[in-house]
Amino acid sequence: MRVIVLGADGYLGWPTSLHLSARGYEVVAVDNLVRRRWDTLCGTSSLVPISTMERRVARWAAETGRTIQWVRLDLRNRADLTELITRHRPDAVVHFAEQRSAPYSMIGAEQAVETQVNNVVGTLNLLFALRESAPECHLVKLGTMGEYGTPNIDIEEGFIEIEHNGRRDRLPYPKQPGSFYHLSKVHDSHNIMFTCKTWGLRSTDLNQGVVYGCNTPETQRHPELRTRFDYDDIWGTVLNRYCVQAAIGRPLTVYGRGGQTRGFIDIRDTVRCIELTIANPPQPGEYRVFNQFTEQFSVGELAERVREARRAHGLETEIVHLPNPRAEAESHYYNAKHQKLIDLGLQPHFLAQTLIEDVIQTVERYRHRVRVETIEPRVDWRKGALVSLRSRRAGDRSRRARSTLGR
Amino acid sequence: MRVIVLGADGYLGWPTSLHLSARGYEVVAVDNLVRRRWDTLCGTSSLVPISTMERRVARWAAETGRTIQWVRLDLRNRADLTELITRHRPDAVVHFAEQRSAPYSMIGAEQAVETQVNNVVGTLNLLFALRESAPECHLVKLGTMGEYGTPNIDIEEGFIEIEHNGRRDRLPYPKQPGSFYHLSKVHDSHNIMFTCKTWGLRSTDLNQGVVYGCNTPETQRHPELRTRFDYDDIWGTVLNRYCVQAAIGRPLTVYGRGGQTRGFIDIRDTVRCIELTIANPPQPGEYRVFNQFTEQFSVGELAERVREARRAHGLETEIVHLPNPRAEAESHYYNAKHQKLIDLGLQPHFLAQTLIEDVIQTVERYRHRVRVETIEPRVDWRKGALVSLRSRRAGDRSRRARSTLGR
Repeated sequence: MRVIVLGADGYLGWPTSLHLSARGYEVVAVDNLVRRRWDTLCGTSSLVPISTMERRVARWAAETGRTIQWVRLDLRNRADLTELITRHRPDAVVHFAEQRSAPYSMIGAEQAVETQVNNVVGTLNLLFALRESAPECHLVKLGTMGEYGTPNIDIEEGFIEIEHNGRRDRLPYPKQPGSFYHLSKVHDSHNIMFTCKTWGLRSTDLNQGVVYGCNTPETQRHPELRTRFDYDDIWGTVLNRYCVQAAIGRPLTVYGRGGQTRGFIDIRDTVRCIELTIANPPQPGEYRVFNQFTEQFSVGELAERVREARRAHGLETEIVHLPNPRAEAESHYYNAKHQKLIDLGLQPHFLAQTLIEDVIQTVERYRHRVRVETIEPRVDWRKGALVSLRSRRAGDRSRRARSTLGR
Repeated sequence: MRVIVLGADGYLGWPTSLHLSARGYEVVAVDNLVRRRWDTLCGTSSLVPISTMERRVARWAAETGRTIQWVRLDLRNRADLTELITRHRPDAVVHFAEQRSAPYSMIGAEQAVETQVNNVVGTLNLLFALRESAPECHLVKLGTMGEYGTPNIDIEEGFIEIEHNGRRDRLPYPKQPGSFYHLSKVHDSHNIMFTCKTWGLRSTDLNQGVVYGCNTPETQRHPELRTRFDYDDIWGTVLNRYCVQAAIGRPLTVYGRGGQTRGFIDIRDTVRCIELTIANPPQPGEYRVFNQFTEQFSVGELAERVREARRAHGLETEIVHLPNPRAEAESHYYNAKHQKLIDLGLQPHFLAQTLIEDVIQTVERYRHRVRVETIEPRVDWRKGALVSLRSRRAGDRSRRARSTLGR
């Protein structure tokens, strides 16, 4: 089976490429490498050093004898993308190739527009390319649990049966996304749903929770196979950030009251979910949604978990509450369904103290690479970028960044 | 009170500008004139001759002594738009400035992307400009009833109270738009709702039905004040198209079975709805939705109405059914609420035989301008453009159009 992974240079795209290749899928890994440029722009950097895509695929071949084909391509270039789809006629396309940071999308007008254009146009180009050259192909699209927001009723998987004034219908679940990034995923979902219905494409929209962890069995095989690990205010996810704060002896910073509850998933489960989704495609014309997470936590609870893991080693960790830079409810009802991937065979890795310890150990190995000044929030949901996002280390170029990124 | 009308060169933007100016509003009329370029591209043309914006505002001043300020500007240019908002600090902005044809958006990838980028980026730029320079300003945004699709339950005005597993919430009404154009309006709605909640902007989203009619009292004052009248497959709305077909002695073409039911509104009520909305602004931070239509009809019923109006004059009109170029249900439940504008004082012009006769009389005056070849559908929802959209009259340039518009 031939699979194209779009966004294969990212935190999850790369481990997914390896996971699928290890299981015998013929993998074409595609990326425009913009994520590395965004790091330069934001003064951020992966804690774990990562190799070039060329070295990664060469190392993977040397280690396993398996070939991953690497293609540098930007989805906004419709002609190139159509040519790629036509050439490979994949059985499935896994689409990670989006700007995926909520804080980045909230820096200012330029980044909001960039996020929505990049994500919406890339996905539209992909949908047209599939209609033209691979209408049977299964589009596995990464969405986000953040599409739903925090409604006061249970969150279903994509659709909800509504009874209203004595009549019933099964309708798309109402969306209340909380950033221009999350909004872009809602736009994508509507566009994809429409093309499934109208053109008969088939797609699974994976509304993923917040991912944590830094390794999969494949990325651990060699240093050159590692995936990126982000802990900063722009690209880092909350548990990964806490682990970095704990490892460098800083307080864990909880935004606001900490009652914000979300779905979470271990990176090892992400790659397995993608595999299960590909192995169980929808019918032609079907658009389905899986909620891809395994457990719910509040961000305050997660901080406690990290503190407990440290305490088991006799280490004390402070937890502090920062003014919340995001506009979001800090205590709310949250009960999101996540049954469909379990039904397909997912056996979750639940969050354990050992995982937290593993992550902290990894961090400790690279603690000299931590850029402390990138951890505290620099983007406010109401005002945009609060300060220049450029790290001071970047020197002269920071002035240019201030004029383009600052407000 | 100062009002900026964006998209003031269009079918509704121009009569709205006149209606508001006549009632003492200080009006700034803004457009990038792309609608006239799209006509050239599609081989289409307004049946009623229209003047340049310069002549229109000069004529309006001569007729009434009132000034409408005309500004040529593209909303995709964020710097220009921000400067405009900063200079005028309007009390309200009426936003018609979008690509508004569903068939145009379905021609092919280029037009789908153009539609979504134009509409989404223009609106994002406007939201950022308002945050920066006029956060109290009331954004009156034109949406469409087509955002809702045709659910099997009653359509509410923007939000619906849902009871689910013993809990309740008032949530955004689920959207099932039926073209890349309608999708772009759903994207806008989500973006606007978010900025009201997060930045405290205030907005009314007017989900308008299908508009018919060609005159308002203001446009009738002088030939140079007329607004455009479209009857073709790309830009024409269904009742206007039927009137043209009747006037030139052609059969009325109903798409598919004709059971497609939609909300409709007279152009004279559109301008009044905008006025009522401006006069009754929402609270800061409030995002509200009005369904802006006055009656529901199926497209088959509308054809019958036109036939009856002709029969009253002893004229027989044929009705034929064409294969439906759109992907849509041809018989379905439809009951959409439209109470909020009535509550604000709208007294609807219901569809009457006299209105149909008036429109047909107007058409007869310009029947020499009808381009018959642009009436039958040239865009299929499943396949895109079926033929070159360029009128044969355009001569040599049609070859270029074929290569850019055809599939």
